[in-house]
Amino acid sequence: MNEQAPQLPKGQLTRLAIIDAALRLATQVGLEGLSIGAVAEMMSMSKSGVFAHFGSREALQQAVVQAYHLRFEATVFQPAMRQARGLPRLRDMMDRWLVQLGLEIDTGCIYVSGATEFDDRPGPVRDTLIESVNTWLQALQRVVKQAIEEGHLHESTDPRQLASELHGLALVLHFEGRFLRDDQAMERARRSVNHLIARYQTQLET
Amino acid sequence: MNEQAPQLPKGQLTRLAIIDAALRLATQVGLEGLSIGAVAEMMSMSKSGVFAHFGSREALQQAVVQAYHLRFEATVFQPAMRQARGLPRLRDMMDRWLVQLGLEIDTGCIYVSGATEFDDRPGPVRDTLIESVNTWLQALQRVVKQAIEEGHLHESTDPRQLASELHGLALVLHFEGRFLRDDQAMERARRSVNHLIARYQTQLET
Repeated sequence: MNEQAPQLPKGQLTRLAIIDAALRLATQVGLEGLSIGAVAEMMSMSKSGVFAHFGSREALQQAVVQAYHLRFEATVFQPAMRQARGLPRLRDMMDRWLVQLGLEIDTGCIYVSGATEFDDRPGPVRDTLIESVNTWLQALQRVVKQAIEEGHLHESTDPRQLASELHGLALVLHFEGRFLRDDQAMERARRSVNHLIARYQTQLET
Repeated sequence: MNEQAPQLPKGQLTRLAIIDAALRLATQVGLEGLSIGAVAEMMSMSKSGVFAHFGSREALQQAVVQAYHLRFEATVFQPAMRQARGLPRLRDMMDRWLVQLGLEIDTGCIYVSGATEFDDRPGPVRDTLIESVNTWLQALQRVVKQAIEEGHLHESTDPRQLASELHGLALVLHFEGRFLRDDQAMERARRSVNHLIARYQTQLET
């Protein structure tokens, strides 16, 4: 039997429900499409009621990025950490990332839309987005480094280079799967993961 | 001495100048940020004057995508076609694409921003964007095929797979160079091109 989850104060629960609705909305329309009014309507709340929980649209946008980040960690990163260090962990992480990317072909992704919305708009939302993406890229690099230490990838492997190449296959899967509606995009992404791992198992020329 | 360029009718010249201003604006603010009013202001024209040339904002957006496409062909695709069939042509095309991508780290790119603006907004602008991207991916594939025919790439190479992987390194260069402001992004992209070509020169495992 599961133990009862600790009861959160009602204000906290409302805040989480608002963030959840806002994240669903932002995934579809982008962080810049997010308005306190639209979120209030989804929640059947007044605008001032939503406003009272965040104080500004920017604070709501930041909370949405943080919520996405935590969810990504919980579904992609943390379960993979239970796998053995090295290639098993890296492969598991990529498998889980591809599952997540597959879902986002239908829904959209706030990292991808946020990158073009905030690329020349400095401020706390962009800072939060960049920090979140960098945290993920650094986690990927650590797992690659472990695979080198375990002797599963060749010692000449540059972890930052491989992390970027994995990031690239994720971006092209999103672009070609979602925008171009190419139903072979996922299959190609899986092949790219295998190609990249096979390549970095041997000495590289360049 | 250059021959004089053939004189275009004045209406045609104005139309081209409007498209040029609109393309510069769309590169920064996205195709969806484009308004007849803002373009009219850039051109010191009346809104109705700009409107008369296009008839609708959508038609102006389409004209901008077509102008970007023609410029991309003229700077990336056509000069590379003067190189010998096979790897010389593919490498030259990638070099030129990387130069273009390097410029777009500063300016933005209407393909990347357009993909998230129009991913769930059907209509003529999305159709024009998709057609333009697909034309480029098909051109890349043809050049890859020629490299296989010339024996410069291994016969097991899947042209669509390699075209997507080259597309992926372009997308990650834009994302990490422009949004994350990572000044190593171009260097990694160059290495990825070399890695990909080296990999597809040999038999692949998968």
